Amino acid sequence: MRLTRYFLPVLKETPAEAQIVSHRLMLRAGMIRQSSAGIYSWLPLGFKVLRRIEQIVHEEQQKAGHIPMLMPTIQSADLWRESGRYDAYGPEMLRIRDRHDRDMLFGPTNEELITDIFRTAVSSYRELPKTLYHVQWKFRDEIRPRFGVMRGREFLMKDGYSFDLDRDSAIHAFNRHVVSYLRTFERLGLKAVPMRADAGPIGGDYSYEFLVLAETGESEVFLDRSVADLALGDRTVDFDDTAALQGLVDQWTAPYARTDETHDAALFDAVPEDRKVTARGIEVGHIFYFGTKYSAPMNAVVTNAEGVQVPVEMGSYGIGVSRLVGALIEANHDDKGIIWPESVAPFGVGIVNLKQGDAAADAACEDLYAGLAKAGVETLYDDRDERAGAKFATMDLIGCPWRITVGPRGLAKGVVELTSRRTGESVELSPEDAISRVAEIFAAV
Amino acid sequence: MRLTRYFLPVLKETPAEAQIVSHRLMLRAGMIRQSSAGIYSWLPLGFKVLRRIEQIVHEEQQKAGHIPMLMPTIQSADLWRESGRYDAYGPEMLRIRDRHDRDMLFGPTNEELITDIFRTAVSSYRELPKTLYHVQWKFRDEIRPRFGVMRGREFLMKDGYSFDLDRDSAIHAFNRHVVSYLRTFERLGLKAVPMRADAGPIGGDYSYEFLVLAETGESEVFLDRSVADLALGDRTVDFDDTAALQGLVDQWTAPYARTDETHDAALFDAVPEDRKVTARGIEVGHIFYFGTKYSAPMNAVVTNAEGVQVPVEMGSYGIGVSRLVGALIEANHDDKGIIWPESVAPFGVGIVNLKQGDAAADAACEDLYAGLAKAGVETLYDDRDERAGAKFATMDLIGCPWRITVGPRGLAKGVVELTSRRTGESVELSPEDAISRVAEIFAAV
Repeated sequence: MRLTRYFLPVLKETPAEAQIVSHRLMLRAGMIRQSSAGIYSWLPLGFKVLRRIEQIVHEEQQKAGHIPMLMPTIQSADLWRESGRYDAYGPEMLRIRDRHDRDMLFGPTNEELITDIFRTAVSSYRELPKTLYHVQWKFRDEIRPRFGVMRGREFLMKDGYSFDLDRDSAIHAFNRHVVSYLRTFERLGLKAVPMRADAGPIGGDYSYEFLVLAETGESEVFLDRSVADLALGDRTVDFDDTAALQGLVDQWTAPYARTDETHDAALFDAVPEDRKVTARGIEVGHIFYFGTKYSAPMNAVVTNAEGVQVPVEMGSYGIGVSRLVGALIEANHDDKGIIWPESVAPFGVGIVNLKQGDAAADAACEDLYAGLAKAGVETLYDDRDERAGAKFATMDLIGCPWRITVGPRGLAKGVVELTSRRTGESVELSPEDAISRVAEIFAAV
Repeated sequence: MRLTRYFLPVLKETPAEAQIVSHRLMLRAGMIRQSSAGIYSWLPLGFKVLRRIEQIVHEEQQKAGHIPMLMPTIQSADLWRESGRYDAYGPEMLRIRDRHDRDMLFGPTNEELITDIFRTAVSSYRELPKTLYHVQWKFRDEIRPRFGVMRGREFLMKDGYSFDLDRDSAIHAFNRHVVSYLRTFERLGLKAVPMRADAGPIGGDYSYEFLVLAETGESEVFLDRSVADLALGDRTVDFDDTAALQGLVDQWTAPYARTDETHDAALFDAVPEDRKVTARGIEVGHIFYFGTKYSAPMNAVVTNAEGVQVPVEMGSYGIGVSRLVGALIEANHDDKGIIWPESVAPFGVGIVNLKQGDAAADAACEDLYAGLAKAGVETLYDDRDERAGAKFATMDLIGCPWRITVGPRGLAKGVVELTSRRTGESVELSPEDAISRVAEIFAAV
């Protein structure tokens, strides 16, 4: 993309209303714009990051055998009356009356709707297990929305729902989610720790939250440092292997890791002193096994091998997709701006032309731009007639992980400069070598 | 995908409530399920098709230089009061009051919101032209929703908005849309004809609809047959070439083609008798050039080269993404079910194992399934323990364009059968040749 053709309304001033760094940087970098309290438009740069995260979430869910679909945003109140949550949910539910005076609502979550779909379609244990999920906009009418996309009212969430015949199989579905979430967050370049959680209004007695450690996190967290050192890395996971999956889950859930809501001081005391960590965390995922909490009242039953009708065992599993954009920035920034991990960067490379209008510099930039496109690396070419300082500031602010700087002096020596946004280190390379170096980096992502 | 692991709730009975074939087939093939009047869940098969269409729409918009972003579903009423449309819009607008008693609405379209974003970000003619678009769920509270996703209440639409300094440049933006839409519909395997239209509540005096000819279309259309014979084919289009683009648009808009709303009997009479066509059509796109209708009241101005502030010239451009799923089925089906064009097929190939449990048949199917995956062809493997007839019926119903049938008798001869869903023709091939034949077909899509 050529910057002169793009829509990147960066702000020079720091917006006064933004209290945390991710909100400030998303506004300054032209990623989002508030349209009403807690409701945002995703400007082109922000939309690109959102889509990259969504894509990784889709890929990892499907690797775990989970099936994508899409439920609507507007739901009928009737199903929520069946489960008993219509009255229980409170003022955070956005209630709507349509032109025929029917009670509708903007879905804050989808347990009722998916249970209704399941009970109509499935009647035999032979069709189990099944896990269905979607990535869809939700609405929670927060009384005081704040922190930008971290606590907005309209937000994008991946929510999945598992249906199993018995508890063991349901726990296996739960474990598939733990491991697929670990992999998802690793691919996003985030360190997210599963922590025992309260089930809250979803219900159930078996629940974990995934928290990213960050100073601005809304929760206080207490953990054994050893859990933060674990990584799946590039190990192969067979999501059908019940024992192997349980082994992984045990490894991640054995060390102490809790939020202030479930913290147990006595247990924490048993953690060796040098491994005790008290920190703050941002919730980016939440998973629940809740058995028959919805299937029983909504009569979602299957016939088991003995011919007896039993309610299915269910779980639900959320990832805050739009919230992750904020969490990623909280975990990846410096005083100049955002530092995107390669896997989610809106543009992998930024080209800065130090002397726009200089024939040699312009031609070298065009060649680089075409070469990077051919190599499959998405590139933002700053072709504006601006000072070098302003171009560097924009690239640093929006956080492309790699920058290639092109100027007459370097070109006279046959080189351009390749700079890492994260380390600030630069190397001089021929334009061809710069392209292959960058192509290599992104091929490995 | 193995069918035993998928969620494909096909219906044996034809649903009584469905009046048109696309609605019937989408329900029967397990693509959608109604959750409330005019509101549908997209089950896994339907979601796949929806996403493929959305992807093609994105690609063609970006080839035309248009920039993707995403606006929220819920909007504040305030902007609609500025444009004067809040009261004008009528009961089709889903009006909502939030917990703080603020007037909100579920966006039926986005002229106001995008104009607000534009006016805050852009102040100079130097930043023009710009075309921004998004693909987002809309809501129109139809009094009598019907025909499934063809006239639903919650629907997915691509809507784009162009901003230009003057009329000539705005017409060029309009033309970019005409041509990118022609290409989009061609890639979808649809014959869509641009027809002069009334601008309706969007306003403006320069508007075309794109209609797919189909017996069940809601509009009567009158056209010169020659326009339906035109095709972009594989010609290269330079979207910056104003004259070339105008030439293409003239070619498509010169022949008579109008809906009943704008029909002019005298003009139609001038069409040679043998080229006169009266038919029915489904609207799948609608584009408008409306000048300063929104920019003037909303004060979206830029400074021109003379330093004078002028309201920007705007247009808006819609494609009915979810509606296209229905339109595609209306145009591509037979009495057995759907016949997907390769470009949007949820699965390119279906494998039918005639003798599940037979070691040789199972092994051959597994090899085919793995080979097709490696070749990048998405495949549905019917691995159920079912009669051949039931398996054929399912594949015909859901419409995979190619079927590979595997049975002990063929395998004894070293062959499988490759069948075209559209022509019904079969050829016997070695499994390896079947894979490469299919891979070739999809590489060309």
